[in-house]
Amino acid sequence: MQIILLISCPDQPGIVAQYSGILFRTNANILSLEEHTETNWFFMRISADCDKLNITQQELKKELEHLSSKLEARLGIYNFTRPVRLALLVSTEAACLQEILIRQQTGQLQCEIPLIISNQQKLSELAGQYNIPFHYVPYENDNQSEAEQKILSYIHKSSIDVIILARFMKILSANFVDQFPEGIINIHHGFLPAFKGSKPYHQAWEHGVKVIGATAHYVTAELDAGAIIAQEVLPVTHQYSVNDMIQAGQDIERRVLLKATAAFLQHRIILHNQRTIVFR
Amino acid sequence: MQIILLISCPDQPGIVAQYSGILFRTNANILSLEEHTETNWFFMRISADCDKLNITQQELKKELEHLSSKLEARLGIYNFTRPVRLALLVSTEAACLQEILIRQQTGQLQCEIPLIISNQQKLSELAGQYNIPFHYVPYENDNQSEAEQKILSYIHKSSIDVIILARFMKILSANFVDQFPEGIINIHHGFLPAFKGSKPYHQAWEHGVKVIGATAHYVTAELDAGAIIAQEVLPVTHQYSVNDMIQAGQDIERRVLLKATAAFLQHRIILHNQRTIVFR
Amino acid sequence: MQIILLISCPDQPGIVAQYSGILFRTNANILSLEEHTETNWFFMRISADCDKLNITQQELKKELEHLSSKLEARLGIYNFTRPVRLALLVSTEAACLQEILIRQQTGQLQCEIPLIISNQQKLSELAGQYNIPFHYVPYENDNQSEAEQKILSYIHKSSIDVIILARFMKILSANFVDQFPEGIINIHHGFLPAFKGSKPYHQAWEHGVKVIGATAHYVTAELDAGAIIAQEVLPVTHQYSVNDMIQAGQDIERRVLLKATAAFLQHRIILHNQRTIVFR
Amino acid sequence: MQIILLISCPDQPGIVAQYSGILFRTNANILSLEEHTETNWFFMRISADCDKLNITQQELKKELEHLSSKLEARLGIYNFTRPVRLALLVSTEAACLQEILIRQQTGQLQCEIPLIISNQQKLSELAGQYNIPFHYVPYENDNQSEAEQKILSYIHKSSIDVIILARFMKILSANFVDQFPEGIINIHHGFLPAFKGSKPYHQAWEHGVKVIGATAHYVTAELDAGAIIAQEVLPVTHQYSVNDMIQAGQDIERRVLLKATAAFLQHRIILHNQRTIVFR
Repeated sequence: MQIILLISCPDQPGIVAQYSGILFRTNANILSLEEHTETNWFFMRISADCDKLNITQQELKKELEHLSSKLEARLGIYNFTRPVRLALLVSTEAACLQEILIRQQTGQLQCEIPLIISNQQKLSELAGQYNIPFHYVPYENDNQSEAEQKILSYIHKSSIDVIILARFMKILSANFVDQFPEGIINIHHGFLPAFKGSKPYHQAWEHGVKVIGATAHYVTAELDAGAIIAQEVLPVTHQYSVNDMIQAGQDIERRVLLKATAAFLQHRIILHNQRTIVFR
Repeated sequence: MQIILLISCPDQPGIVAQYSGILFRTNANILSLEEHTETNWFFMRISADCDKLNITQQELKKELEHLSSKLEARLGIYNFTRPVRLALLVSTEAACLQEILIRQQTGQLQCEIPLIISNQQKLSELAGQYNIPFHYVPYENDNQSEAEQKILSYIHKSSIDVIILARFMKILSANFVDQFPEGIINIHHGFLPAFKGSKPYHQAWEHGVKVIGATAHYVTAELDAGAIIAQEVLPVTHQYSVNDMIQAGQDIERRVLLKATAAFLQHRIILHNQRTIVFR
Repeated sequence: MQIILLISCPDQPGIVAQYSGILFRTNANILSLEEHTETNWFFMRISADCDKLNITQQELKKELEHLSSKLEARLGIYNFTRPVRLALLVSTEAACLQEILIRQQTGQLQCEIPLIISNQQKLSELAGQYNIPFHYVPYENDNQSEAEQKILSYIHKSSIDVIILARFMKILSANFVDQFPEGIINIHHGFLPAFKGSKPYHQAWEHGVKVIGATAHYVTAELDAGAIIAQEVLPVTHQYSVNDMIQAGQDIERRVLLKATAAFLQHRIILHNQRTIVFR
Repeated sequence: MQIILLISCPDQPGIVAQYSGILFRTNANILSLEEHTETNWFFMRISADCDKLNITQQELKKELEHLSSKLEARLGIYNFTRPVRLALLVSTEAACLQEILIRQQTGQLQCEIPLIISNQQKLSELAGQYNIPFHYVPYENDNQSEAEQKILSYIHKSSIDVIILARFMKILSANFVDQFPEGIINIHHGFLPAFKGSKPYHQAWEHGVKVIGATAHYVTAELDAGAIIAQEVLPVTHQYSVNDMIQAGQDIERRVLLKATAAFLQHRIILHNQRTIVFR
């Protein structure tokens, strides 16, 4: 069995030695280790093979927690016996949804997708192609609270770990968002922090930009201001119309959302002071 | 002798046929032709060899102007017998200045550089390495008007066609800028329109962006808001400190400024409604 | 109605003027024009709107052919009333096939796909998802000739214009290939001309390359040696295993094959001396 | 004082724990640690601050060597008190040489450059601009052995650690090369392993490639076949003439050579079975 450790703590001598020491002593074999230091804070991700562990997993967990407490570290321990459960919120655009469904189907994205929720009915057929339950939840200004209640109940019933907004065209309330810290990922079809809000490609065209991009980020109560997880860009020229940008942009969006989702599922993200450390 | 035509006019049938018709009749040979249409406006750049012209250059010019008047076109005619004259305004950073000087020296950037003006003395030695007159003009808030007068007089004495702000750390007054429409190019060390103003890399780091960039643009009275000519970007990770970003950014800045300067010198830019058409 | 002209001929004065002159006189409106000159040869692509033509299409065609004959030009005239008909040959890998089917379904790839042929049965279900007839044709060394006869008969019955080898793992005979000059496009999962033949990612890994790529090219009798239409690359590090390269490579492959296929369908490719001119 | 450890050994449990354990016990503080595993082999680079070491450096060295011997590891220990000494071999092209000299001058490339050797006199002036001794050594087929003797004597007199071939247009003999395993870096102006040998851009143009590149590699007796250290690429179109490719290529070459040189100077390269592990 393989486990992942995500560690962040004040920088100090001996962090690597002490964590790796525990793993060595308990006969866990480090498969990969990546660390990072910034502004006196230390971050580390370790994956280790625990097949030959000479103590129980519970005991290993206690040892690691004990050390973390001593180092004032935030510690996450993950294993892959229970796959991460992911919900998709969509509206009418197929590209991002399709990308995630295809990758999950081919095994490149290891997770379970128990449900797709949409404020439109258009993508129900696509959901059907992949045999995933599709829930149509009308979501308008005058029924927002009720709609979010409905979404919440679906989320909780299915024990969802992460919500992916794959071009969901509604702005979730602060009340909803606050229930899922580091638990909602959105794809913004623009190069944040430029072009927040709606019609980013129209804005980009009018500015005559020579590069367009897309941004995947954690969702917080403030619109399009959560910590950035992944960004990609594409050079464009004056020859790109707004529609060309939108179409080219969709390609970037689905790549970027896939990248951020994969990073989440593989426990490669640490959030710290509104910045993400995204291990490779 | 080679000429360049830059044409922009309301879109209408026969534009290509009529301009190319004149050139064919007068025995000018088209070397390259590039056109673009957007929102009912037509843009074209033609380079043509005029060595075997069967009329005088003056007569050709008249014919082209006559047609342009009929089509309500803005027409620019350029030849390369008189090289473009370029002035550099700098402060203390060498990278962009050096890039332009090296490329001009090796013949990749065809222009004359009769002067470098700086509000600091630091780069005078570098100017000396390339035998270019260096003028130190102190430029502070309390002497801005006087400093700009001095700069203007240098510019006019040397018959300058274009001013390149190669990391000039002062904000020129609207009064100064307005005298050079499409005549001043600036390099902004950020990905406009995000991160206007000062310390863009600090802003980028705090936002945890995963891509940084630089932007070359025409200078207008509004800060960092002129039409974009060239942009490039570089993927970054959490491993980049602010200083790493600054250093990596300098590489992008010098590439982007070079690109925009080359486009200007080769008469490949048409400005239209705050957007640039930049032919290849 | 919109037409596309593809023209290539010895370079000489007046080519643009004469072709655009015909279009202007006959009231066809040029929508876009792109030209290129190399080693004394001239290439041009024109798209024009013929809705207000003042002569018949047949007469326009004659005028254009007459001029082409005078200029010793190779002329192609295409319109979009009859969509290009495309056949896909596949084996077991889904990624490239899926990309093309998705894009055709969403209208980004304008063509008809009347059949998919495979030497394996694995992808028949995927073909079914998109309602495209799937023909299983066993293809081994000992029945190559017979298998190719079968494929040919499918191709001819469906009036196919272009054959796309979307990871078809067999090498077609020279006899087959020679019947479709500029009519078969292959995706090679390597950066040609390095790594010809089989297992290119294994070769790349052993060489420790820092960049991998994929190449779409016309198929000729010589293996992986036909003219290159599109190439893309991806930086890799020592951290990429052969399998990581294969997976990352699939993403490049499907993008590159899509790009080449789109270029073909939009009549943007001219082949000349084993090099392709690919207009934008 | 900062030290760098480069470690490679058969993969086995406890490598990280034991090395980091020594450093923790001796009060060395790990600044960064990067590891990699492939085909049962383990690679690691550690940088550590030794200012508060509680034993002597000699004792630390002994402890590390003792452990390495137990793990059958190859161990390199580097510190920055003695800067790496670098010799440049050039012919007539300035771009790569200039890039390295500029970066060394601005402190981005931490090394000493005690000499430049050339088989041509053209670049002596450039060397002079940077105050670096320039040695002209005629190098032809009929005096190769004698010329290499001369070069060797300069190299040895100046205690050179690494030789950079910055567009040196001669092929060094196996006899010469074998004296500097992992000690000579060359820039090849092509995308190896395609286009070995001379005129790679002519080869690339004739093949109509859509991407060009450059490769920095260790030099071995076999031409252009040593382990690759860095590669970069640039998309090109049919519009690039051979000369355009050469000019664009120079930009890639100087970037790639700089990248490989920096990796060497910062002790970030481990060579293993003709593949390089290049830590970030």
